[in-house]
Amino acid sequence: MNHDPNCIFCMIVRGDAPSLKVYEDEDCLGFMDIMPQSEGHVLVIPKRHAAQIFDVSADEAAKLIRVTHELAGAVRNAMQPDGVMLAQLNGADAGQTVFHLHFHIVPRYAGQKLALHASKMGDTETLKTHCEKIRAALHDTA
Amino acid sequence: MNHDPNCIFCMIVRGDAPSLKVYEDEDCLGFMDIMPQSEGHVLVIPKRHAAQIFDVSADEAAKLIRVTHELAGAVRNAMQPDGVMLAQLNGADAGQTVFHLHFHIVPRYAGQKLALHASKMGDTETLKTHCEKIRAALHDTA
Repeated sequence: MNHDPNCIFCMIVRGDAPSLKVYEDEDCLGFMDIMPQSEGHVLVIPKRHAAQIFDVSADEAAKLIRVTHELAGAVRNAMQPDGVMLAQLNGADAGQTVFHLHFHIVPRYAGQKLALHASKMGDTETLKTHCEKIRAALHDTA
Repeated sequence: MNHDPNCIFCMIVRGDAPSLKVYEDEDCLGFMDIMPQSEGHVLVIPKRHAAQIFDVSADEAAKLIRVTHELAGAVRNAMQPDGVMLAQLNGADAGQTVFHLHFHIVPRYAGQKLALHASKMGDTETLKTHCEKIRAALHDTA
């Protein structure tokens, strides 16, 4: 599989960097954003390295959204937010900060503004708790 | 097909409200956002009425992202932005303003902030010009 040795998400895929995994299959990985914009912020990535949505086939994009669709439902059930934003940013000028294709699943809570993208580390214990809740919700609906 | 008589996007699907169409097939429609957040802002919707991503199957979500993937490439080729944001908002608290599932394709230009979501009508002639450019780019890559 195609990996970029300098890419933090490729390191996570290989197990060379830690992550709080929500979901894993042959092609995709879902894990907690360690700098969450809101509580329960999850990222979904293809395992092979691709920088942008333009660098994958329609089939790969479809696989990624199938997983995102499923995980978004689990995030909603686990976190009970008032809304859910899906976002996928291509290029630094679009706000992309890690240049490995990823979909954001960002729960939105009434009256709460989003934290700035990739600005502040989340508390590890809180992230673990949310990860477990989302995994449990995924298990319930699977 | 399931339509909501009070939904502006269902009216567009039926041809009862005008739109600048970029793409159409049996299941999906792509058209210019008339209140663009940036030049070349396109929306992609399923033809049948569904409010949120949670209201469609994984297959329907996959079909929608296949079209979004293709149109995003055409938007990029036509508009030559510095980045492209894909976004899909579920619920008023996530910023959803039309309650018919849609993916935003939002070109990002270096140094330009986004216009506020659904805040200001675009100039019709400019929208038409962008629509034609994107349609032409789609034809080139099809």
